[in-house]
Amino acid sequence: MREFQLVSVDDHILEPPHLWQSRLPQRYRDIGPRVVTIATTADNPAIPDKHKLFLVEGEERSLQFWAYEDLLIPSAGLAAAISKRPEEYSVDPMSFEEMRPGCYDPAARIPDLDVDGVIASLCFPSFGRLCGQTFAEAKDKELSLLCVRAYNDFIFDEWCAAAPGRFIPMCVLPLWDVDLAVAELERVAALGARAISFSENPAKLGLPSIHRADNYWDPLFAAAAAADIPLCLHIGSSSSMISTAADAPMSVFVALAPINAQITLMDWLLSGVVLRHPRLKIVLSEGGIGWIPYLLERADYVWQRQRVWTNSPLTDVPSAYFRENFYGCFIDDAHGAANIHEIGVDRCMIEVDYPHSDSTWPNSVETATKHLSTLSDSELYQVTRGNAERVFRFQPSGIGQL
Amino acid sequence: MREFQLVSVDDHILEPPHLWQSRLPQRYRDIGPRVVTIATTADNPAIPDKHKLFLVEGEERSLQFWAYEDLLIPSAGLAAAISKRPEEYSVDPMSFEEMRPGCYDPAARIPDLDVDGVIASLCFPSFGRLCGQTFAEAKDKELSLLCVRAYNDFIFDEWCAAAPGRFIPMCVLPLWDVDLAVAELERVAALGARAISFSENPAKLGLPSIHRADNYWDPLFAAAAAADIPLCLHIGSSSSMISTAADAPMSVFVALAPINAQITLMDWLLSGVVLRHPRLKIVLSEGGIGWIPYLLERADYVWQRQRVWTNSPLTDVPSAYFRENFYGCFIDDAHGAANIHEIGVDRCMIEVDYPHSDSTWPNSVETATKHLSTLSDSELYQVTRGNAERVFRFQPSGIGQL
Repeated sequence: MREFQLVSVDDHILEPPHLWQSRLPQRYRDIGPRVVTIATTADNPAIPDKHKLFLVEGEERSLQFWAYEDLLIPSAGLAAAISKRPEEYSVDPMSFEEMRPGCYDPAARIPDLDVDGVIASLCFPSFGRLCGQTFAEAKDKELSLLCVRAYNDFIFDEWCAAAPGRFIPMCVLPLWDVDLAVAELERVAALGARAISFSENPAKLGLPSIHRADNYWDPLFAAAAAADIPLCLHIGSSSSMISTAADAPMSVFVALAPINAQITLMDWLLSGVVLRHPRLKIVLSEGGIGWIPYLLERADYVWQRQRVWTNSPLTDVPSAYFRENFYGCFIDDAHGAANIHEIGVDRCMIEVDYPHSDSTWPNSVETATKHLSTLSDSELYQVTRGNAERVFRFQPSGIGQL
Repeated sequence: MREFQLVSVDDHILEPPHLWQSRLPQRYRDIGPRVVTIATTADNPAIPDKHKLFLVEGEERSLQFWAYEDLLIPSAGLAAAISKRPEEYSVDPMSFEEMRPGCYDPAARIPDLDVDGVIASLCFPSFGRLCGQTFAEAKDKELSLLCVRAYNDFIFDEWCAAAPGRFIPMCVLPLWDVDLAVAELERVAALGARAISFSENPAKLGLPSIHRADNYWDPLFAAAAAADIPLCLHIGSSSSMISTAADAPMSVFVALAPINAQITLMDWLLSGVVLRHPRLKIVLSEGGIGWIPYLLERADYVWQRQRVWTNSPLTDVPSAYFRENFYGCFIDDAHGAANIHEIGVDRCMIEVDYPHSDSTWPNSVETATKHLSTLSDSELYQVTRGNAERVFRFQPSGIGQL
């Protein structure tokens, strides 16, 4: 068995309670994001119905919530399922005291990375949501902008600073205004950001789509390309997930989540965005890769047959743009790994998804070994580490006992 | 090169204008489905906006429409694109006189099947929509039921009768009432029906979902299983297609259409329907197959990790049910064909999609040859013909010059 380490390009931070309280101006601390403990029952109108799954009719429970403006959001147990067995996790909320500290504390995350063979990790927000939708939806946009900046500053000053060389700095943007987004991208680029979490589909957030005739997002795409900062499009970052029926089991909803990546790839490929921004890098986060050969074939088939009447802006088959501008990521994907040469060994990166319930932790190297055993040493290096280092321009360092 | 013929399990009938007019009682003929020619402009409020794409502002055009109650629907040119080059077809409507007669005339379809090497064909409705949604949405449900029966009688008396042994009889059901649906299934089973086109997701049609706690559809599933009549779930038969943004190019919408089959397979697999109906056959029509290995792996992964808190009814991995009860179909799918042993050679059937713009006609045998060349003779027979003969209990006959 070959020894190797991983760069995980998809993990998650459960923001610690002090994040915004310690960084927002005093006047905003009482409506800005904060953690509160509330004794509540199922008939509390302040708590949205979708967050009441875990409340038993007539029974009072003391729970921690994130409070922000008029939002009250419990942390779902699935988001902190790490180190638990399937019998032990659910959507039932978990307090910070019940969580494994690696969920929210970067110093505690490091030994968890070490034990899993992960030399570097790229982390998405949780309360802020995958690309900062929470702030884009809030009412007071002056506060929203302060929250976005506070999150990004936390990433540099606390999260990444806790273990230099171990965390790839990923930031979010004020999505509600492209000029503010460009300004924040340039600010965090100067601070050393190596990735931006952008929305897989801003139209579903009520924002201009990537297709808009005036190319609304082009200044941002141009700035990202100029700074050589990839846009990571995480499944769910459109706040829109596939639902088949109101009474379908939750397993259907969970199992279909990565389909968003297929929709996203097709949407971005056929949009022509990368024709205008040939150096833009687009990373499809947590979507898996086993479907990519099929999807590219479908994209090319449709382009070949329907490009005339649909007036396609593309001048080559869609798959050609994939091979220049897009990257797929996978947690545990036997079919994708077995077909990785068809997808492109240079197109694929690995994910651990710590601390979510889909995570391979603490067996990520074993999982990768199982699926990638037929690759040559240099190919294995590319997929588990080298591609991430190149795409995000990040050289892991500061590694202890690995 | 090996010589072989195909059974195409997905083609389409453009219903001829006389279909309902010749079969409905006199009192219903003036509001029942009929073809009318109207000189119209873009500001005609009788025509829904979605059907106005082809109307030029201020310009009058004489067009054929299907009229039914207060519906006015032009036939889209893409549905009759057969024999045209990509430069020649679009959503622009086409009159019956402009169409290739094989679109609506079974006698004219036969030489088109012959030239394509197709010995038998399974056909879905067009004006009635894929599983008869048009009738389920209409107001006068007495008329709707007569329309469904008229369509099914047309299938036996005219379409299949025109060339015995060449068309697999597929029927539609009165979806708005499960008791009526069971009665019609039993009526057409007695007439020799070999397939039912059911909805991939009745919930999206405003009908009870396949997940409903009272197992609303179980009498129908039991009747289909007892009669050994497969349910074909065609992409789009939920009247719900993936749309990324209002201003996304039409190519995105078209290219994403088969994603419905992935959603459908996951939804049905995890529903547990086939645990209650272990002999039920489910055919995924026009969804392709290249994604199946990925999707089954994802289904199993989620089931293994989330089955406890999601309270899954399944007693085995979801992929085990696929291998007993489900079938995938493909038009032109190189990745699927190359991985057909992983999907199951006994699970896959071929489609021509005559007369739509995705069709391989008149090169369907050449296309199949290109992708299936590594199969043994008996495997090739299974995929191109044998599986369809077994699943639909249909032995092609009456073949002329093939």
